[in-house]
Amino acid sequence: MAKAIDKQAVAAIRALAIDEINQANSGHPGMALDAAPALYALYRDHLVSDPAHPDWCNRDRFVLSSGHASSLLYAILHCAGYEISMDDLKSFRQLGSKTPGHPEVGHTPGVDATSGPLGQGLAQAVGMAIAEKAIRNQYPDGEKIMSHYTYCLCGDGDLEEGISQEAISLAGHLRLNKLVVIYDQNGSTLDGPTSDSLSEAIKLRFLASEWNVLEVRNGNNINKVSSAIAKAKKSSVYPTLIIMKTVIGYGSANQGSHKTHGTPLGEEDGNHAKAVYGVTWDKFTVPEAVYELFKQTFQARGAAAYAAYANSLAEYGKYHPEEQKTFLASFKRELPELPSRDYGDLTKEATRKSSGAMLALYRSAVPYCIGGSADVAGSTNTDVKGVKPFPEGTDMRYGIREFAMASAQNGILLHGGLISYCACFLVFSDYMKNAIRMAALEHLPAIYLFTHDSLAVGEDGPTHQPVEQLTGLRAMPNLHVFRPADAKEVEGAYQLAFQSKGVPSAIVLSRQALPMLEKTDPKKVAKGAYPVLSPERGSKADCTILATGSEVSLALEAAEELVKRGYVMEVISAPCLELLEKNPSYKNKLFSTPYAKRVSLEMGSTLGWGRYAKWNIGVDEFGASGKAEAVLDEYGFTPMKIADKIAYFLSKK
Amino acid sequence: MAKAIDKQAVAAIRALAIDEINQANSGHPGMALDAAPALYALYRDHLVSDPAHPDWCNRDRFVLSSGHASSLLYAILHCAGYEISMDDLKSFRQLGSKTPGHPEVGHTPGVDATSGPLGQGLAQAVGMAIAEKAIRNQYPDGEKIMSHYTYCLCGDGDLEEGISQEAISLAGHLRLNKLVVIYDQNGSTLDGPTSDSLSEAIKLRFLASEWNVLEVRNGNNINKVSSAIAKAKKSSVYPTLIIMKTVIGYGSANQGSHKTHGTPLGEEDGNHAKAVYGVTWDKFTVPEAVYELFKQTFQARGAAAYAAYANSLAEYGKYHPEEQKTFLASFKRELPELPSRDYGDLTKEATRKSSGAMLALYRSAVPYCIGGSADVAGSTNTDVKGVKPFPEGTDMRYGIREFAMASAQNGILLHGGLISYCACFLVFSDYMKNAIRMAALEHLPAIYLFTHDSLAVGEDGPTHQPVEQLTGLRAMPNLHVFRPADAKEVEGAYQLAFQSKGVPSAIVLSRQALPMLEKTDPKKVAKGAYPVLSPERGSKADCTILATGSEVSLALEAAEELVKRGYVMEVISAPCLELLEKNPSYKNKLFSTPYAKRVSLEMGSTLGWGRYAKWNIGVDEFGASGKAEAVLDEYGFTPMKIADKIAYFLSKK
Repeated sequence: MAKAIDKQAVAAIRALAIDEINQANSGHPGMALDAAPALYALYRDHLVSDPAHPDWCNRDRFVLSSGHASSLLYAILHCAGYEISMDDLKSFRQLGSKTPGHPEVGHTPGVDATSGPLGQGLAQAVGMAIAEKAIRNQYPDGEKIMSHYTYCLCGDGDLEEGISQEAISLAGHLRLNKLVVIYDQNGSTLDGPTSDSLSEAIKLRFLASEWNVLEVRNGNNINKVSSAIAKAKKSSVYPTLIIMKTVIGYGSANQGSHKTHGTPLGEEDGNHAKAVYGVTWDKFTVPEAVYELFKQTFQARGAAAYAAYANSLAEYGKYHPEEQKTFLASFKRELPELPSRDYGDLTKEATRKSSGAMLALYRSAVPYCIGGSADVAGSTNTDVKGVKPFPEGTDMRYGIREFAMASAQNGILLHGGLISYCACFLVFSDYMKNAIRMAALEHLPAIYLFTHDSLAVGEDGPTHQPVEQLTGLRAMPNLHVFRPADAKEVEGAYQLAFQSKGVPSAIVLSRQALPMLEKTDPKKVAKGAYPVLSPERGSKADCTILATGSEVSLALEAAEELVKRGYVMEVISAPCLELLEKNPSYKNKLFSTPYAKRVSLEMGSTLGWGRYAKWNIGVDEFGASGKAEAVLDEYGFTPMKIADKIAYFLSKK
Repeated sequence: MAKAIDKQAVAAIRALAIDEINQANSGHPGMALDAAPALYALYRDHLVSDPAHPDWCNRDRFVLSSGHASSLLYAILHCAGYEISMDDLKSFRQLGSKTPGHPEVGHTPGVDATSGPLGQGLAQAVGMAIAEKAIRNQYPDGEKIMSHYTYCLCGDGDLEEGISQEAISLAGHLRLNKLVVIYDQNGSTLDGPTSDSLSEAIKLRFLASEWNVLEVRNGNNINKVSSAIAKAKKSSVYPTLIIMKTVIGYGSANQGSHKTHGTPLGEEDGNHAKAVYGVTWDKFTVPEAVYELFKQTFQARGAAAYAAYANSLAEYGKYHPEEQKTFLASFKRELPELPSRDYGDLTKEATRKSSGAMLALYRSAVPYCIGGSADVAGSTNTDVKGVKPFPEGTDMRYGIREFAMASAQNGILLHGGLISYCACFLVFSDYMKNAIRMAALEHLPAIYLFTHDSLAVGEDGPTHQPVEQLTGLRAMPNLHVFRPADAKEVEGAYQLAFQSKGVPSAIVLSRQALPMLEKTDPKKVAKGAYPVLSPERGSKADCTILATGSEVSLALEAAEELVKRGYVMEVISAPCLELLEKNPSYKNKLFSTPYAKRVSLEMGSTLGWGRYAKWNIGVDEFGASGKAEAVLDEYGFTPMKIADKIAYFLSKK
């Protein structure tokens, strides 16, 4: 039997959610109302976090994967003592408020992840649990400085998304026993009853993926939910799913119907629901006893844990001073000095291999790295020697699960304490597109290593040859897309990617060997673009070729041919257009030629190059299977064909 | 016990695969060698298809989801009598050959789907099975004209991908009992043993998704595989998975190791393997007895079935002449005359609603439509009245499974006989990105209805507000991206999308109401772009605004203000830039202003607009949660703010 105060607290939280949504006349009451008791049980009895230090590194993490239930999260965070005022709740879903439509990390205290795009909250929680385990295992006596749980609340929408299977399969395989997922089985999706589109035995599916599964038949029973969480926390091997049956929109006259999913209850039905809960107080108010309860439970527990942790961390410093320093630096993302690569007499190297060399080099200097690939470690050169597989080490074998890999990496970075990279072929960045977007939105310094970056993939053919991916990635806000021309530019890209604090980096790499170029310079990558062939002093260029990646050396060869034909040529390497755009005054001085005398050269969609050059050489059709040289010749990417094309452009008025 | 001829046939097929890969010095022998007996069993005993009529509509379909095993498919298709010569096999993976690195539909007879991007072969097979069932159910005595099986061979890579869960969950829910999937469990992925990244009980996962599961312990046992397929075909409710244990790279000195996955065996190991198989004949030859066997089994069965079907179809025409006509037209994608929409006194309508009206209208005229959404039927207006849910009707409830939805739609269209559309929010086109790419690559007339197309989504915030998606889609080859300005342009887009034969169409639609514009015209959508405000006769425009979708009416309002300020204005609506690009001479005459006097206006990434206009107004950052009007104002999308911005541009030199 729940005590009266518990009933009152859950009623208050539910009433706040109703008020928020009614005030905004926008929002999703369905799950907000049915999952309130579960979240209450979690915050009252289990979650260890201190509202006075919401960014404390060893706090438990909580991800509301069903981000549309944000009203509930804000209501409970308000009651639990986070800096979310009643006025903040009143401005739910209003521009500039602390309480946006879906939770946004970094925007609202107590929110550990941005969520909304279904399935990704769950995958991010998996990433957080990976980070916790990885960090603990990497330090001697690691459990003294890193030991917490990761909780996640998800719904049917999350579990229908394919990424959920990738994420749970990975979590089960990796034995993330400190991950606890509550599945709110409310029997309804936006369009109708879940049974319209789902016949799955979810329990069996999780068991198949090596999870521990518990069941709570009535999600309104706070103590049963709490007991299930307590039991879940004891799992020593497997992650735990708690299947919790609830009634969508509980309290509404339409409870149990999908109609409560995404439509505000309105005044009348809101009052009806409040009567069901036993609410006797005014709109946007909370009984003092409820605040008091959270103080005595959640806040007291969190403050004590925070204080104990501070002691433990100080104590740790006595025995492991160097490790403590590293640990603290890792959460601030402070880097030791990054070593420079010694190129010896290197004349030619596939940039995917250059990337592998940089990984090995930086891994040796930065002890807090984690990363891996989607079953293409050999091909993407991410199999760094000496790094052991997770959980013993930090080599991640994500399996053929690109989307969950990228999303879990978001969770790793949200957690903090690790620099993370992940790798696959550029064309399959498509599979993880929205997770990259989430990294950009969450301001995470994610690192993507995308190899096999053009038609030069060759024999694997058009399904494996990227064409439009570069443009699609460049269109994304807050993402740096690097396409280095050679090993030196790879080093420049790596420096920037590792040093980044709030911008993800996609480093796009060739399968084929590329010559080391005379004028490329790791330091100049930060400019975004710079000349690698300039007209002789005093002479003016007839034409500028602006190229990236493998096409820079091609541009230089074509320029050489054009010089023979009497043209004065300039070639600019543009490893990162986003960085160029950040410096308009530099950009305006970069080109020595007018717009009509510039040619862009990149083996991908020409869309987007029109802003720099009148003439765009690229690939606006799909590729073909064949030997790389044959494919490149067929599509016109030989020095002679490029030179001919440019000469033709220059002959036009 | 397999007969000697069977042993010989499998040996011949394996030897061909080895020869193809060695000749190309490129390819994936691993699964090609281990799955040969299974494919042989399928073609010898079950698959009903006629090499003389490879496009026969009622043939069984076969999808090699593990497309990297293409050498095996080509080898068996050659032996089975398809038009793939020994010379074609010798030019495996060479430019212009019939035998590309991954199977490509429309390129090679006998290949039913393009595959390679993992998981999508399986999802396409699910789509084919949906099409078969949908068509059969839509015609009286439908089983007389549509009744076949869909087979699929997949591997671990397919099943680790999240899309596989979406696809199998959907297939189980939809009771696709005529779908038979063989899972080649060879225990290895590219990087190492499958156990490095997978601990799943695959059998349990399929059972959880309501599949029938059979097991074959030794994939070399042809008759056991054949019996399992025979049993699977008898399933009257559930789709069937046959889990077949094999040894990767069977015959190689490295058999059982991931080293055989993607590396040619080479001459020596190839000979070793051939010795294991008992091959006594030369490279690139096949014993006559093997050809003979396929003639007597596969070809004889196929030819008889084809002849019987021709009779059955003719007979059907006697009793159901109209339906027969419709059926034949549907497979040629011939359309009846499409009705025009009567706009009455409509003054304002969200284009997502206009889309719903067009769906209802065209559905009433075209009896062979199928479509639905990813649990957003209400929001995307795809819930057409009177259309019953599949399998009784053709309303698809895909669930929250965007990627499988788009990929299954590819399967539906590959199958033929149906016009298909699917819907979700534009921002979640990210989730299905690579399936759209596959539609474009396969030349499928897919129709995507992407609603909620801008910041005007409002309260749901940045996770739900698309910014970069339009640019990403436009960068894709062979895709038409329509962004209609009002209901009339929606009609134009629908006409073109329904009439398309080899180009997919993405129709991008507003959540908010848009005014009906005076000068918009359904017929002009085909031009890609056209003026909706022209300078008065004789006067020359000072400025052109090029806009799409909801920004066309905004452009007109801004232009009105600028006209008041004394400027002569031109406004061009650009519902489809790809169509504009197809007509360079029209494009060159379209603008009455020079490049420096043109402004693009679209609430999305400005990347890509530089090719049309010097000045680009768009959104190069993420959106924000708030009331739509407040968000639009904040980001500058009000007539007055746009007018001010344009006046400022025009004032610059």
